[in-house]
Amino acid sequence: MKRVYLDNNATTIIDPEVLEEMSPFLGEEYGNPSSFHTFGSSVMERISRARELVAALIGAHPDEIVFTSGGTESDNTALRGCSLLRGGPVVTTAVEHPAVLDTARQLGGPARIIGVDSMGMLDMQSFRHSLEGAAVASVMFANNETGTLMPVKEAAAASGEAGVPFHTDAVQAVGKVPVDVEELGLDMLSLSAHKFHGPKGIGALYIRRGFSLPPLLTGGHQEKGMRAGTYNSAGIIGLGKAAELAARHLSEEKRVAGLLASLENGLKASCPGAMIMAEGSPRLPNTSTVIFRGIESEAVLTLLDMRGVYASSGSACSTGSKDPSHVLMAMGLDHNLANSAVRFSLSRFTTPEEIEYTIRALSGIVERLRAISPFV
Amino acid sequence: MKRVYLDNNATTIIDPEVLEEMSPFLGEEYGNPSSFHTFGSSVMERISRARELVAALIGAHPDEIVFTSGGTESDNTALRGCSLLRGGPVVTTAVEHPAVLDTARQLGGPARIIGVDSMGMLDMQSFRHSLEGAAVASVMFANNETGTLMPVKEAAAASGEAGVPFHTDAVQAVGKVPVDVEELGLDMLSLSAHKFHGPKGIGALYIRRGFSLPPLLTGGHQEKGMRAGTYNSAGIIGLGKAAELAARHLSEEKRVAGLLASLENGLKASCPGAMIMAEGSPRLPNTSTVIFRGIESEAVLTLLDMRGVYASSGSACSTGSKDPSHVLMAMGLDHNLANSAVRFSLSRFTTPEEIEYTIRALSGIVERLRAISPFV
Repeated sequence: MKRVYLDNNATTIIDPEVLEEMSPFLGEEYGNPSSFHTFGSSVMERISRARELVAALIGAHPDEIVFTSGGTESDNTALRGCSLLRGGPVVTTAVEHPAVLDTARQLGGPARIIGVDSMGMLDMQSFRHSLEGAAVASVMFANNETGTLMPVKEAAAASGEAGVPFHTDAVQAVGKVPVDVEELGLDMLSLSAHKFHGPKGIGALYIRRGFSLPPLLTGGHQEKGMRAGTYNSAGIIGLGKAAELAARHLSEEKRVAGLLASLENGLKASCPGAMIMAEGSPRLPNTSTVIFRGIESEAVLTLLDMRGVYASSGSACSTGSKDPSHVLMAMGLDHNLANSAVRFSLSRFTTPEEIEYTIRALSGIVERLRAISPFV
Repeated sequence: MKRVYLDNNATTIIDPEVLEEMSPFLGEEYGNPSSFHTFGSSVMERISRARELVAALIGAHPDEIVFTSGGTESDNTALRGCSLLRGGPVVTTAVEHPAVLDTARQLGGPARIIGVDSMGMLDMQSFRHSLEGAAVASVMFANNETGTLMPVKEAAAASGEAGVPFHTDAVQAVGKVPVDVEELGLDMLSLSAHKFHGPKGIGALYIRRGFSLPPLLTGGHQEKGMRAGTYNSAGIIGLGKAAELAARHLSEEKRVAGLLASLENGLKASCPGAMIMAEGSPRLPNTSTVIFRGIESEAVLTLLDMRGVYASSGSACSTGSKDPSHVLMAMGLDHNLANSAVRFSLSRFTTPEEIEYTIRALSGIVERLRAISPFV
């Protein structure tokens, strides 16, 4: 059966070039980078190179990069560190990933959770008014469900004026759109390798020079005391290569945006009542959440799966929960509409044929489900 | 040049069978295990199998295993969780890995750090007297530098009587000696894949059924809320296979112990004044720290390195520090002796020829260094 993978915001295939770069470090080059002997310390040189590549992708200095086990650890390090350092609540948005939102809710008293409009766009005025006395402000770069690009530069500037450290969860943006920490004026940024064709279990936290955070994981002297634990050398070197390739392929995102437009136009034409979330908003080039009115997304996804097309109904991290997407609810959808949402997320490996196949499959599925739906 | 790797307590080679098991999940089977579609959820079945294999290795139930990014995260989760839950200081030993010792020092007021004797053995009487009002007691299973096996069962029983949760950092023991959480009466146990021929960046925390801990990393619903973050599927499946192989190869540790005895006897015979740390104590079958009186370990290690033999002067996690080993100092050594210590750690891949080569290389090195040493 044909396999059409349109769930790249959940995770991506490891680029074969990335895997090739990792391979020696899963094999014969297994030394511990922190070891005194050359068999270990030679690996450290490759880790330094990976650090440079990650830094280059986001316009940072290599000494501003701390390797972590992924986006969730990076987010937790940023938010928990600021909370410990400064006290006070976390200011964040209603559409964050749970790694930020659930963490914010646990720290320093009631979190200040700022709403969004029907495009998923942050209410900047409320954000500004909520900053005073906060431990940290955290606004995601791009939403994982709708792709909405947040006004991160504006939010960072407002935080700076209020003397509040600013963090962005850029897990869904890095590798898909240009990100420049200097130009945006960020204090902290989270990224994750497996969202841009690197391996799972590795990520990084950018921490601006001169900004100091207590570590989340204490123990060994790795990462200048900012993150204890044996270096995941294969993972780090894979992340470095993925960053290098992402920088090289960034211009291809126009092609991806073209495929996304084909998908959206095809669905609107062939599935009556299909509605694109945040359609008028600046968005990631690869992400579209489509509402199929009157049809439950689980039914659509199950029938798509039977045809080899893999999409999702929101964050993989929320699977198992029966609640509708908190992102779509924050954008003003009711339960029924939110439960009719299907997310498609493309990658640079997506082909026009796959998009055509998906449109054909979906129009049949939607027609069939509508015929038996009591709601339409 | 011949390569003789005798630094297996720092990290180990990934067993080729483990890598083979991981490979599909670094390639075509890249789905997110938390995804709704079958392309992701099929990976979850393999993660469940890995959980069973890890549980089987330590006599646990699969639902008592939480996957983490490694030993340091497991230790931090246990200690920080108990501190948050109960308050009070951490009771631990002077010879722990920094992931326990440094973390203990940060939590709940002055840590109660119990001394050891010249064999590295815990002072059980002091330990008992320090338990009252503690958040958690943490005693390592086996010391990473000397291999000394701690009286974990006795310590766990004493903690239980005092109503204090008991954790053991078994990172250096699991896969090398039999470990049974039920028989030992443990509440929590940390393990790390890369110490027993699994990949780096993955580990687990055993949490006894009925014992409840707050998570260190919050966010997604993975691991029943006990550890948020996208599943590192290749890593977890590698850990599972490494656990399966470790169980199968556990009987080989007698052969490893025989090689270690050859090394120790050879060094005592050919290097006058060589002294084995904790020689009379129950120890891991693979670990020996040897003191070469009057010679700095860095000189020995550098010359060994030039002959392709890789050993260490203690924990790789402490490399870069100029301080002598806190473990050897706690055992009563002075600075000079502690700085003369070289650790050899073998694995099931170590051969008799490698041991002979190492003895020959070392006797030449020690003779040469003694000839120029002002201290002998």
